Amino acid sequence: MLEYQGTGMSVMEMSHRSKPYVRIAEGAEALLRELMGISEAYKVLFLQGGATAQFAAIPMNLLRGRNRVAHVNTGIWSKKAISEAKHHATVDIAASSEEGGFVTVPDPATWTIAKDAAYVHYTANETIGGLEFQSVPEIAAEIPLVCDMSSNILSRAIDVDRFGLIYAGAQKNMGPSGIRVVIVREDLIGSAVKGTPSVLDYRQQADNGSMLNTPPTYAWYLLGLVLEWLKEKGGVEAIERINQQKADKLYRVIDGSDFYANPIDPAARSRMNIPFRIHDVTLDATFLEEAKSQGLVNLEGHRSVGGFRASIYNAMPEAGVDALVEFMQGFEQRYG
Amino acid sequence: MLEYQGTGMSVMEMSHRSKPYVRIAEGAEALLRELMGISEAYKVLFLQGGATAQFAAIPMNLLRGRNRVAHVNTGIWSKKAISEAKHHATVDIAASSEEGGFVTVPDPATWTIAKDAAYVHYTANETIGGLEFQSVPEIAAEIPLVCDMSSNILSRAIDVDRFGLIYAGAQKNMGPSGIRVVIVREDLIGSAVKGTPSVLDYRQQADNGSMLNTPPTYAWYLLGLVLEWLKEKGGVEAIERINQQKADKLYRVIDGSDFYANPIDPAARSRMNIPFRIHDVTLDATFLEEAKSQGLVNLEGHRSVGGFRASIYNAMPEAGVDALVEFMQGFEQRYG
Repeated sequence: MLEYQGTGMSVMEMSHRSKPYVRIAEGAEALLRELMGISEAYKVLFLQGGATAQFAAIPMNLLRGRNRVAHVNTGIWSKKAISEAKHHATVDIAASSEEGGFVTVPDPATWTIAKDAAYVHYTANETIGGLEFQSVPEIAAEIPLVCDMSSNILSRAIDVDRFGLIYAGAQKNMGPSGIRVVIVREDLIGSAVKGTPSVLDYRQQADNGSMLNTPPTYAWYLLGLVLEWLKEKGGVEAIERINQQKADKLYRVIDGSDFYANPIDPAARSRMNIPFRIHDVTLDATFLEEAKSQGLVNLEGHRSVGGFRASIYNAMPEAGVDALVEFMQGFEQRYG
Repeated sequence: MLEYQGTGMSVMEMSHRSKPYVRIAEGAEALLRELMGISEAYKVLFLQGGATAQFAAIPMNLLRGRNRVAHVNTGIWSKKAISEAKHHATVDIAASSEEGGFVTVPDPATWTIAKDAAYVHYTANETIGGLEFQSVPEIAAEIPLVCDMSSNILSRAIDVDRFGLIYAGAQKNMGPSGIRVVIVREDLIGSAVKGTPSVLDYRQQADNGSMLNTPPTYAWYLLGLVLEWLKEKGGVEAIERINQQKADKLYRVIDGSDFYANPIDPAARSRMNIPFRIHDVTLDATFLEEAKSQGLVNLEGHRSVGGFRASIYNAMPEAGVDALVEFMQGFEQRYG
C-alpha cells in the first residue's frame, strides 16, 4: 500500500500520466479483456459516477439521431434506468414483470421492441428483488442490447459479442466503489447529443484512454488487483461454478424448509443476492442478533423490502455461505 | 485499513448506507465546514467525476434561466472550463492574461461582466502556469462568484461567503483522486436545465446527502482523515503560514540567481506550483537525474511547457522544500 514496486511512492501518490500508473491502468484493461473475452470491436472505458451517471450517458451517447429506446422492467434498478432515460428519449417498456410483483424475468420472446428503438436496455441482476437473467436475451440482431451488469459482471460467463454496451460498477464483483466499467461496441459511439458533458461522452473518453479528467487512480489499481485474483482463481468459468454452488446451497435450505421462504421463480433466481423471509416475522430481530453474534453481518433485507438478504458476490468465499447455511439450519431447529 | 473501529470490516467493505459509514461521511463534511468556515447557507456536496464534470454541471445548474456566463482566462484550467461551458451557454471572457503569455492574473477592477451573466467563473490557481490569485476578487455582489479551487483549496484562508460556488477535487490538498467537493449557496440551486444527468444535479445530490448513487466511499473516508490531519496541524491559517514559507524559500533561490528563472509576476505567483527553468537548457536532463538520485522526484514541468515544476501542496513538508532548495543551490554551484 505504501510503496509500489520500487517507485518510492504509493499508487495513491502517482500521477495518472506517469509510466508506472499507465502500466497499471492498461494492465487492468488487458486483464478484463482476457477474462471476459472482449474483442477489439469494443472500447473498454473506466469512468466515474456510478450507474446513475450511465443511466443518462447511455441515451446521450447511443441515440444516434433516434428518439426512442426500449427498456425491460424487472425491479428497482430497471426503474431507475427508465426514469433517467425519460429525460432524454421516449422510453417504451418492452416487457415488465411488475404485475406479478417482480418474481420473474420476462421471456425475451415476448419483448416488444419498436423498429426505430435506438437500443433495448435490461438489468442483468436485480440486487434488491433477487432476480437474475440466466442467459443473454435473444433479440433481433440489429437492435443493440444494452445491459446493466453492475451486480453480476464476472460472476458467470457471457458472450460479450451479443451486446452493444455493458456497464458495471466495480463495487460488487470488481473492487471498491468509485469506478465503473463501460464496454461499448465502437461503431455505436461518436455521435453524443449536444450538451453531453465531456466526461460522459464515450467517444471523448475513448480517445483519451478514459483520462479526459483525472481518473480514480487507486480504485482503478484495486480493480486490477481483483482481476488478478480472479484470474488466479481460474477465471470466470471457475468462479461461476463456485457461485452456482454457493447459491444452490442457500436456496436448498430455503426451499427445504417451511420456516424460510424466497418468492422468486426458480428459473430467475439470482446467484448474487438471495432475499428470504422467516414466516414468523416476530423472529426477525432475533435472527439478525444471533447471526451477528456469529459474525454473520449485512443480512438485513434492503430497507425498501425488509426481510433478509444474503449478498454472495464473487468475493464471498464458499465457507461464508456454509457458515450461514449452518446458522440458518440451527436457527430453524431452535425456533421453528 | 483492514478493520474500522471494531466493525469487523474495512471501510472499503461497508455499505454507504450503514451507520458507521454515514458517520464517516457526515464527519468529513462537518470538519470541512469547520476548517473553511462554511455557513448553513451553503450545501457541501461530495461528488465524482473530476473538474471536467463540474465544468458542465456548473452551467447546467446555475444558469437559472439565463444564457450568458462570464469567465476569466488565466491559463489551461480556465480554458478547459470555458470550452465546456460553451456547450451550455454564451461565454463572455470577462478578462484574460493570455496576451502577455499568462504571466499574471487580471486585476478584478478591469473585469467586464454583463449585467445578465448568470455568474463569473475564475480559476484560483493554475497548476501548469504557476499563477494564483492572492485574494478573492472584488466584484459586484449580485453576480455569483464561481471558483475552481481544485489545486489550492485549504492552502490559505478564504471567506466562503464571498462565493456562489467553490469546487475542488480532493487529489491536491484533500486526499486521493476520485472525489470532488462542491460548496454551493443553496439559493442558487434547484433549477437545473432539462437533460441534466441526475448525478450532476446539485439539488438532487443535496437532497440525497450526495448519495444519489453509491459514493466513492473509501476516497471520502481518506478525505476525512486528511481533514483531521489538517486540523491537528492547526487548520488553514497554520498551513497557510507553512505554505507561504515553503513558497518564499523556493522563489528566493530562483530570484536570487541568474541560473534559474520563473517568469510570473511576483504579485500573482502560485504557492502551490512553482515552475522554473534553467537558462542553459542543455542542463535539464542532468538536473532531473541528479535530483532523482537524491530522492527528489516529479520535478518535470508539465509536458505542455517543459522546464521544471515544484508542486508543493499542503502534504509536502517544509523539509522537502529545504532539500530541494539545497539541491538547487548545489547544482547551481556545480554547473552555474
